Amino acid sequence: MSSPADFFQGRSVLITGGLGFIGSNLARRLVACGAKIVLVDSLVPEYGGNLFNITDIADSVKVNISDVRDRYSLKYLVQGQDFIFNLAGQTSHLDSMEDPETDLAINCAAQLSILETCRKHCPGVKLVFASTRQIYGKPNYLPVDEEHPLNPVDVNGINKMAAEFYHTLYSNVHGLKACVLRLTNTIGPRMRVRDARQTFVGMWIRQLLEGRPIEVWEGQQLRDFTYVEDVVDAMLAAALSEEGNGRVFNLGGDPPISLRDLAAMMIDLNGAGTFNVRIFPAERKKIDIGDYYSDFKRIRTALAWEPHTPLREALVCTLEYYRANIQHYV
Amino acid sequence: MSSPADFFQGRSVLITGGLGFIGSNLARRLVACGAKIVLVDSLVPEYGGNLFNITDIADSVKVNISDVRDRYSLKYLVQGQDFIFNLAGQTSHLDSMEDPETDLAINCAAQLSILETCRKHCPGVKLVFASTRQIYGKPNYLPVDEEHPLNPVDVNGINKMAAEFYHTLYSNVHGLKACVLRLTNTIGPRMRVRDARQTFVGMWIRQLLEGRPIEVWEGQQLRDFTYVEDVVDAMLAAALSEEGNGRVFNLGGDPPISLRDLAAMMIDLNGAGTFNVRIFPAERKKIDIGDYYSDFKRIRTALAWEPHTPLREALVCTLEYYRANIQHYV
Repeated sequence: MSSPADFFQGRSVLITGGLGFIGSNLARRLVACGAKIVLVDSLVPEYGGNLFNITDIADSVKVNISDVRDRYSLKYLVQGQDFIFNLAGQTSHLDSMEDPETDLAINCAAQLSILETCRKHCPGVKLVFASTRQIYGKPNYLPVDEEHPLNPVDVNGINKMAAEFYHTLYSNVHGLKACVLRLTNTIGPRMRVRDARQTFVGMWIRQLLEGRPIEVWEGQQLRDFTYVEDVVDAMLAAALSEEGNGRVFNLGGDPPISLRDLAAMMIDLNGAGTFNVRIFPAERKKIDIGDYYSDFKRIRTALAWEPHTPLREALVCTLEYYRANIQHYV
Repeated sequence: MSSPADFFQGRSVLITGGLGFIGSNLARRLVACGAKIVLVDSLVPEYGGNLFNITDIADSVKVNISDVRDRYSLKYLVQGQDFIFNLAGQTSHLDSMEDPETDLAINCAAQLSILETCRKHCPGVKLVFASTRQIYGKPNYLPVDEEHPLNPVDVNGINKMAAEFYHTLYSNVHGLKACVLRLTNTIGPRMRVRDARQTFVGMWIRQLLEGRPIEVWEGQQLRDFTYVEDVVDAMLAAALSEEGNGRVFNLGGDPPISLRDLAAMMIDLNGAGTFNVRIFPAERKKIDIGDYYSDFKRIRTALAWEPHTPLREALVCTLEYYRANIQHYV
């Protein structure tokens, strides 16, 4: 297999959600590979887009501010692309329960519209879609592999599940090349830290750096984490390989850790801090999933992907980044 | 358990897709129970609505022509109802592949909008949602029970799957009362016979009565069938019982039969006819599911439902109905 640098040199790449956490880290790597990059982002304040995420690569990418719900804009932008990394999304589970129709428009309808445009106007494109472990719901067994039944417990999970099926269907039936990655908790520089809408770890980083106690919900739940650079590796591997077309792959990371232990580790790495344990209110409890961690043997075998960054190292890099840059994120 | 007649007397009932095949048969039964009935239907020519379906009960129901995509109309109509039978849908698998966004708007977005209206404005309502065995995709084992993985092979199946999850989620999280029935092939008077958009059996009935050969695709596939009056029984049982809230149930019928044997049986019951066997074109083959038949033990146990009408009797009644009325359906 050729290296990403050989492969993406001069190729046209579109990243939806390109100013967000994962999109901007992916863009940085693709810039280094010599790709021609368009970043599409809506900059909706509640989502992950932040122009600061690309300050160092701003001259090497084209930024197009538009919303994936704007089908006319996307119809134009999609055409002529060799690769589309489809990362734009509403990620908050709670917001999806309060305003499910917005979640549907972004996570479901917009995705179908992008796929329809590809089918009609650029059938040769390769798509990589960022799905989520949320669609498994409360695990029946651990670790969770891709054969685990899908049982999403919130509207966000239902819509992401539908979008994922659209991608594999368009690959298997219409011959588009699309690969789906089911991400678990992704952490790293450029994640949203203003609140817990994207990941609770973002909120914890902020609390820690502002000298406030980390607010841990419950605390016994086990979770696994992938460092964003490892997620970027997986996205490039999915794009490079024909092996993943029409298929779905879990990502994962180091062995799982309880939220309480994670909080303690972060305080230790930070050199100071405290945490409070809080109990879920009834409404939140209903959509809680208990322990979760992934089995990611399938992607290891099919795409030779492995996470390389231990959790401690991921947290050190992340803390360091926000110590220098938090003013651009709050 | 009280009888449906005791239960629905004077109760307010809304049926979406109320001028269609199942909706109109359900309405007829509810008229006999003394319910106050509103039938909502868009009368989109490609779908199942037909005013002739209610000629004999037209004075006992209120008809409101509107589309479930019209959220304003639905928002008004839903309020104050005791029961909603949510049957409106785009049912053609092939149409969903050609025009997936229309399928999404009807089968997915409109359903979410109805549920949101119920959550906000009539949280005490009971919903019964008509889902489909299509969401199982190509069976891994037979008969297919409700634990079978969901693997829809067309856009219609993906959208119906999402809509079904919305219903159970709103029941389990928001406390709305909603029960989902996964229908297999439903047959009987008032089904669409103009073409195969709703059921291939409709098209066969038409071919038979017009003295043309029945067009059988492939022919070895096994299928099961539920007579529409048995489906109506299941809908009333689902509405009556609290036992089904937040749950999904397969319907079923007589032991399965191959399409070829079904064609022969229909010709026999009709007293005349022929059939041609045709082979799927490549496009259609890709979304074919092979054999399918349901395990419906769960609804038998939980709601005491059983199908009462043997397949032969169902076909006799159906043929008889269309012999008298086919001019209103073609």
